Amino acid sequence: MDHAGRRDRLRAVAGGAGLDAVLVTNLLNVRYLTGFTGSNGALLLRADSDDVFGTDGRYTTQAGVQVPDLELLVDRSTVSALATRAAHLGTGRLGYESHDVTVDGLHALERVLGEAAGGGAVPELVSIRRAVETLRAIKDGDEVEALRRACTVADRALAELAAEGALRPGRTELDVGRELDARMLQLGAEAPSFETIVATGANSAVPHHRPDATVLRDGDLLKLDFGATVDGYHSDMTRTLVLGHATDWQQEVYALVAASQAAGRAALAVGAEVAAVDAAARDVIVAAGHGEHFTHGLGHGVGLEIHEAPGISALGAGTLAAGMAVTVEPGVYLPGHGGVRIEDTLIVADGEPELLTLTSKELLVL
Amino acid sequence: MDHAGRRDRLRAVAGGAGLDAVLVTNLLNVRYLTGFTGSNGALLLRADSDDVFGTDGRYTTQAGVQVPDLELLVDRSTVSALATRAAHLGTGRLGYESHDVTVDGLHALERVLGEAAGGGAVPELVSIRRAVETLRAIKDGDEVEALRRACTVADRALAELAAEGALRPGRTELDVGRELDARMLQLGAEAPSFETIVATGANSAVPHHRPDATVLRDGDLLKLDFGATVDGYHSDMTRTLVLGHATDWQQEVYALVAASQAAGRAALAVGAEVAAVDAAARDVIVAAGHGEHFTHGLGHGVGLEIHEAPGISALGAGTLAAGMAVTVEPGVYLPGHGGVRIEDTLIVADGEPELLTLTSKELLVL
Repeated sequence: MDHAGRRDRLRAVAGGAGLDAVLVTNLLNVRYLTGFTGSNGALLLRADSDDVFGTDGRYTTQAGVQVPDLELLVDRSTVSALATRAAHLGTGRLGYESHDVTVDGLHALERVLGEAAGGGAVPELVSIRRAVETLRAIKDGDEVEALRRACTVADRALAELAAEGALRPGRTELDVGRELDARMLQLGAEAPSFETIVATGANSAVPHHRPDATVLRDGDLLKLDFGATVDGYHSDMTRTLVLGHATDWQQEVYALVAASQAAGRAALAVGAEVAAVDAAARDVIVAAGHGEHFTHGLGHGVGLEIHEAPGISALGAGTLAAGMAVTVEPGVYLPGHGGVRIEDTLIVADGEPELLTLTSKELLVL
Repeated sequence: MDHAGRRDRLRAVAGGAGLDAVLVTNLLNVRYLTGFTGSNGALLLRADSDDVFGTDGRYTTQAGVQVPDLELLVDRSTVSALATRAAHLGTGRLGYESHDVTVDGLHALERVLGEAAGGGAVPELVSIRRAVETLRAIKDGDEVEALRRACTVADRALAELAAEGALRPGRTELDVGRELDARMLQLGAEAPSFETIVATGANSAVPHHRPDATVLRDGDLLKLDFGATVDGYHSDMTRTLVLGHATDWQQEVYALVAASQAAGRAALAVGAEVAAVDAAARDVIVAAGHGEHFTHGLGHGVGLEIHEAPGISALGAGTLAAGMAVTVEPGVYLPGHGGVRIEDTLIVADGEPELLTLTSKELLVL
């Protein structure tokens, strides 16, 4: 992955904001900018000089392998040590992540900077807001490739379980969820992307139902919302199946959600307002009289986090750009009866978006 | 779990600090105090009245099931809505978690409190520090039971893989790690406790080696550091095995670490200084001339987090109390050759500590 190129893009942002250096503390942002995957690391990015990567002694070896191109600073108090370095380098304006640093963390930074400055000028702390998250919203080729692999693992896990008859009446939601998770690990996932949702029968009407001991029954809907993490990148897919045979209302709701989802995918275009994309899918459901049963936003960005920029909802602001990875996931939930959600992960592109989750969206009767 | 009792203990702490209410935002602390397991929730705990639990619309149903005893406030801006409620209730001094709330979060809280107060008195925000984490360090019976089950899953997963011959020359670290993870899920874990460490040969000398494509070879050490999460509670265990046959140096290092680990366990007593517990184990290794090869602290608390209070290290402060769940995990790492770590999870008690990780600590030759 092109970590140096990413750092240079952040350097340009920092330069534009008149910052001499930026202290990046959000661990996913650090990973994005350096490749480091340990549980403690931070980056001092300098406007016109070499950057310094900090971690503690547990990760000396790992940092040498993953971040070979940066100066390494090893210290138990990693962030404080990097701040001290920044002060000693004569940093005037020091950017920091005010959405990540806690109140206690800020006080510690101020104390350390004051001490390191001696009697001299103390660096001024300036929030860079979500500058790195904004960069992260546009995926580069390596990131798309990781997302593609993550989606493939999820596709395969579901296909294998379906082929083996694991999704059959008599089993519990928990059985199915654990098997999906285990299968994704066997297929190369580092972890599930989030707590896998398995919801059958009336539970499928709960958008974020946690799998429990509910038994799968003939004629029930079965909603599966799950994903795999590969190289840190998350896939996200929902499919709703039906066990044994589909009733008329199940088929009608399914067809409605599928039409909405297709409209949402068709609206994914470079320059599209996110609220308009939401509306394209939502209008289909509203027109059918089910607007009140679609209770959440249409989708979200996905990458090193399962939920990241951009949000795609009625209240969202901003437009789509080429290289954004997003989900499209409308649902119709009929309390007490059941619900259907269909979700894909896609890459926004000039022309057609690229579909990464390739499992069929025909109503599967198992 | 006795969430009401836990809230009453925090209420006593808040009362002692002269607070009218506390806004708990750390999600694990919220879980500890309410039982809520979703990804967004907060608690307004009131000094002498009923508490309010807040979440967003995704979790209305789940909150009704998991937190039936508290008033439920559903709002997309959960924390802001609870702060507004606190202001409307005439809260004078409002405790908050300054180690959890970000700088941006504090500014949002201040803005919301000012708006909600109208022209009246604005509630004063006062840090409660790690008050909830301090309570969490002492486990109650339900928590110990969850930890016991988490440890049992890890014990069984390792026993099954060893019995099936999965830990044999020719396989890779990644193979073994993924099988351990998958087996723990099949045995009822929600997730691995952390990124499973599988380190063979010279890699075993790296304390936190990430499993890679290194192939297990006859005569190599194989260090496995892993755990299962059950009902949110984490187990943590390390065992070091040897493949095929043990050389003299491997046996010597193993015996040394085992003696150190036994000394550490023996030092776990109510009232013991954590630094003295570390020293009890470390002295054994230092006396054998390997002090420089034991490069980390002896152990840490474990519970809803894999690392929590108390830390057990040479620089640690404080004493052990009955009901603390801790690890004891000395290691000797010989760079370029290999390393041995032996780790258990135990409960500090009057008299003998209770050992939760029951896998044998004899040097296993597979």
